[in-house]
Amino acid sequence: MNKNLINGISADRIGIDDRGLRYGDGLFETIAFSAGRASLWDRHMSRLTEGCLRLGLDEPDRDLLSAEANLLAGPHDRAVIRIILTRGTGGKGYIPPETPRLTRIVQCLDAPPEDAGPQGLRAFWCSIRLADQPALAGLKHLNRLEQVLAGDECRRAGCDEGFLMNGAGELIEAIHSNVVIATDSGLVTPVLDRCGVQGVGLAWLMDQPDVTVEQRRIDRSEVEQAREWMVINSLRGIRPVTRLDGLERQPGPACRQLQELWNHMMDDHAA
Amino acid sequence: MNKNLINGISADRIGIDDRGLRYGDGLFETIAFSAGRASLWDRHMSRLTEGCLRLGLDEPDRDLLSAEANLLAGPHDRAVIRIILTRGTGGKGYIPPETPRLTRIVQCLDAPPEDAGPQGLRAFWCSIRLADQPALAGLKHLNRLEQVLAGDECRRAGCDEGFLMNGAGELIEAIHSNVVIATDSGLVTPVLDRCGVQGVGLAWLMDQPDVTVEQRRIDRSEVEQAREWMVINSLRGIRPVTRLDGLERQPGPACRQLQELWNHMMDDHAA
Repeated sequence: MNKNLINGISADRIGIDDRGLRYGDGLFETIAFSAGRASLWDRHMSRLTEGCLRLGLDEPDRDLLSAEANLLAGPHDRAVIRIILTRGTGGKGYIPPETPRLTRIVQCLDAPPEDAGPQGLRAFWCSIRLADQPALAGLKHLNRLEQVLAGDECRRAGCDEGFLMNGAGELIEAIHSNVVIATDSGLVTPVLDRCGVQGVGLAWLMDQPDVTVEQRRIDRSEVEQAREWMVINSLRGIRPVTRLDGLERQPGPACRQLQELWNHMMDDHAA
Repeated sequence: MNKNLINGISADRIGIDDRGLRYGDGLFETIAFSAGRASLWDRHMSRLTEGCLRLGLDEPDRDLLSAEANLLAGPHDRAVIRIILTRGTGGKGYIPPETPRLTRIVQCLDAPPEDAGPQGLRAFWCSIRLADQPALAGLKHLNRLEQVLAGDECRRAGCDEGFLMNGAGELIEAIHSNVVIATDSGLVTPVLDRCGVQGVGLAWLMDQPDVTVEQRRIDRSEVEQAREWMVINSLRGIRPVTRLDGLERQPGPACRQLQELWNHMMDDHAA
């Protein structure tokens, strides 16, 4: 069984001149498969396509990616597929080649272990701030040093997640997830027009007809006063955050309601 | 003759799980060799060491890097050595491994072609702005999508260089170089504490006893009123910029003086 395909060929190494390594010049997606199906496949492909458009890359061939991802995921109960698209080789230093030939990597990873989701996550405020860069905001690109440095803080803090602010002290996202908070006036999530990743799980949530999530600027004090905190990502769904530095919250009704919706969606697709 | 060494072994491919590809989790240096010597070697090693410190990587083994770089550069008249250090594999997603085993890549590239330096470079103002990220400012790390997007603008503009501003509209650097301008009150170069790369050529220049370069904030209008514009990088030295969008300047005395100093330093080291 192949575990990795590079441009359609079974392989696990790429050239050191690939612009993905040299400059992080590319995009990725990490996609949950269950019994041979990926519930959020179309949303992953939409984000990848938008990323290609914004970085000046040819639109990805969705049918080809789907065929390769399905081949690797197989009929297993759970699998995680990572797709990486880079601008390939060539160009003159930073200046990209006029007609790049993309490097297409499709990998089958071990499914993430079940974790402390139901009991709630321990989170903290990261000291590193996310930089405002509208040209890259929302994309899942390969320039992830901010998340690596935040991840290093997370490991040292002994936490499961870290909340990240921009330079102005507004909540943007968590290291591995988007964040939704329940306030007196309803569910709120940060705007992601200047930094942060536009999560596929969050996009699904915001499209649910029975759910209203307001997207607006949220400062730290509003987060700390919220009734409930939760994080969402496409691999692990919706999970309550029960500790944020010195503050504590019990998993609440808003989180339970969204988790039910999520599970329903996953069951529907698996059926 | 080996052209590339990966962890000391002749090779030209790295694993797709390397964090250098996945997250741009690493640093690089591009170093000019002339007749088997690199005049600015110590300065390149200083920046690389500082980068390792700030990213939480073990200090590089300078003797080992020197031996590998010299082996690849050989006694040729001109050679360019690229060193890439990544955090290697492992960790849990973004969260880095506690004791990373670095990937060490040393490459011998073709020397850059002689270009229109003496005649002066055509430059333009890039529309993309550099994001403020003090945690990464100054470093030559592998997250270079901003430069790639600026490079794409540069290619489409038909220019040799692009001047980059931060969000506040202050000059920071050029795509491939640092910038020095000659004003009525002397030579000035931007501060690089929030974004930009701390160039090795610029560091050399600022250490010259006979040269005074003030480092401070410079807004666009001051750049446009300057007597001379010049760019500096360790591979190509100091070059005049003779066009900046619709404005023109002749190569002037300040640039000629600095070029003489540079050539003197290069000759000294080659002697």
